Amino acid sequence: MTDRNDVDRRLGEQVRIVGSGLLGASIGLGLSAKGVDVIVDDASPSTRSLAIAYGAGRAPAADDAPGLVVVAVPPDVTADVVAAELARYPDALVTDVASVKLAPLEQLTARGADLSRYLGTHPMAGRERGGAVSARADLFVGRPWIVAGHDAIGYRRAAAIEDMILDLGAVPIEMDVAAHDAAVALVSHAPQLVASLMAARLRDGSPSALGLAGQGLRDTTRIASSDPGLWVQILGANASGIAEVLRPLRDQLDQVIAALDAPDEPASRRIIAETLAAGNDGVARIPGKHGQDKRFTSLVVKIDDRPGELARLLTEIGEEGVNMEDLRLEHSPETRVGFAEISVLPEAAHPLASALEQRGWTLMEAER
Amino acid sequence: MTDRNDVDRRLGEQVRIVGSGLLGASIGLGLSAKGVDVIVDDASPSTRSLAIAYGAGRAPAADDAPGLVVVAVPPDVTADVVAAELARYPDALVTDVASVKLAPLEQLTARGADLSRYLGTHPMAGRERGGAVSARADLFVGRPWIVAGHDAIGYRRAAAIEDMILDLGAVPIEMDVAAHDAAVALVSHAPQLVASLMAARLRDGSPSALGLAGQGLRDTTRIASSDPGLWVQILGANASGIAEVLRPLRDQLDQVIAALDAPDEPASRRIIAETLAAGNDGVARIPGKHGQDKRFTSLVVKIDDRPGELARLLTEIGEEGVNMEDLRLEHSPETRVGFAEISVLPEAAHPLASALEQRGWTLMEAER
Repeated sequence: MTDRNDVDRRLGEQVRIVGSGLLGASIGLGLSAKGVDVIVDDASPSTRSLAIAYGAGRAPAADDAPGLVVVAVPPDVTADVVAAELARYPDALVTDVASVKLAPLEQLTARGADLSRYLGTHPMAGRERGGAVSARADLFVGRPWIVAGHDAIGYRRAAAIEDMILDLGAVPIEMDVAAHDAAVALVSHAPQLVASLMAARLRDGSPSALGLAGQGLRDTTRIASSDPGLWVQILGANASGIAEVLRPLRDQLDQVIAALDAPDEPASRRIIAETLAAGNDGVARIPGKHGQDKRFTSLVVKIDDRPGELARLLTEIGEEGVNMEDLRLEHSPETRVGFAEISVLPEAAHPLASALEQRGWTLMEAER
Repeated sequence: MTDRNDVDRRLGEQVRIVGSGLLGASIGLGLSAKGVDVIVDDASPSTRSLAIAYGAGRAPAADDAPGLVVVAVPPDVTADVVAAELARYPDALVTDVASVKLAPLEQLTARGADLSRYLGTHPMAGRERGGAVSARADLFVGRPWIVAGHDAIGYRRAAAIEDMILDLGAVPIEMDVAAHDAAVALVSHAPQLVASLMAARLRDGSPSALGLAGQGLRDTTRIASSDPGLWVQILGANASGIAEVLRPLRDQLDQVIAALDAPDEPASRRIIAETLAAGNDGVARIPGKHGQDKRFTSLVVKIDDRPGELARLLTEIGEEGVNMEDLRLEHSPETRVGFAEISVLPEAAHPLASALEQRGWTLMEAER
């Protein structure tokens, strides 16, 4: 992190970061490590001092002339701070990193801010899960970072933002402001509320009922542990987009409840079957390695719950020359036995299964 | 599987299994491996022949005198088959393995079946996820297996059922019939529908929106890939219990949508914050290693996506003498970089992080 590497740096200008929480300080650390002149500011002097002491950049000075200002403050105050920075540095390009993009742009438009120098972004770096204790120069490495385009800014004027994203090791993805907010409403904000609504029902369960919880429930409700304080801001700032996802969901839920109330009606089974089939179709649209990726075949291997067993399994899979595409662990709450679900290319599955059984591993029925 | 081991066997009686799908054949394989005299029957002669050829047991004979009959047929026909077996073998204890328990008992009561010889059970062996290709003698090893008690059968009369469960390596858990159905409605059936309802919304998303999907969405919707055919039967058989979970969820969803429709109303933020906080409370009640287990601390390690890297990491964690309590992998769809989230005891986290960094691993910000 202290090795300055100017050679592969793209950004040339001074960068001013306003807000030195996890995202702001991480951007400062990452750019400082690249040799960028980073100025760190924060409404809280003590927070600013901490970020500077940690290496995120230097304190502001009277002759600062930032070419790029990065606003990394909570969603509620993002537009205010962006407007203030646009006014304070009339030559600077200003961006923000809030996880909603339409509301800040509308607020800036309403107050007549110079939108030819503003372009919002959204790094998909997991901040919404909360609980971060310290910034990292490599927080963004390998993460998508949305650049939320609008018509008032020219392509060339925005170049420094893409440079910053690339300098931080992230992957810039261009997306229209409204499309961004609709996308995160669908893939992030609505699922957060749905997980919270399901998890809220668990308050009513008996301990013995909760003792039957399997991996399905754990997965379905995992993100329900997110920080309410941050999420209230995010959800409030994207309210209409989220409601557009939840309203048809509620309508379908109403149909499902009506079907469950009359399970012997001919239409009821059809409604429930259609709901399940629609879920099949929807989940199949999620790209990537994880999830219901039909490109891979799963093997489930029994693992004794003692140190080193999983490492030994993975080492032996490597010795067989097989590349593991994914791995999931599953524990049974009542026992000391675990199961590793390994995803491999279909042609590798059968030879690997035979080889592992020969090596003494127990393969189980794959559950899907 | 062919090593007969009578010594640690508990079951003494002849066992007749009706229905030779995944569960029935797996029970037959497991008990046959223990040296039990297993009779396999099935409405389909070809299915029965296959299970027998595979080693699940032998064909029925005229002088069969089973002490225990296990009915392993779809939920829709469970009560019919149980009633027929009770009538056919007036000295036998009869059980079933359907994943709902109240409906079969009510149907048997209505037709005046001899309930003093019937006790339903439910092995939590992942069958609902569907897609199983072949039975396994060890399918139930380490899994909870509910014994769904009712008042008409005496404790001693049911002993063979617990013997069978223990002989198969599973963990018997006693639970009242109604409590069982309410429990699985809460921890399994309602979450299935909620995941399906959320996943169904993804049909409307653009490819670029779905390209932003992170681990949260993948987890929340994973079980939405379940087999609709099987689930329609399960959900129909436990309809009122599931509706009791979904109705208050729908009411809270209505409140959330109303709040999102008026995000600037003073009450709206409170409603959303309360929903998120209720989700926090609910998910914290799920026991076990997985999920939001506060007993462990997470470290996130960057893994280059090439064969052997994860095995090397786990081997080195073992070399440091640290027992890994849980492991999750996360991939960024746009890159060849992955992240391993490792859960360890809190006191082990800091020394392990230092040791791994010294060994050249890059540790990232833990996301929760």
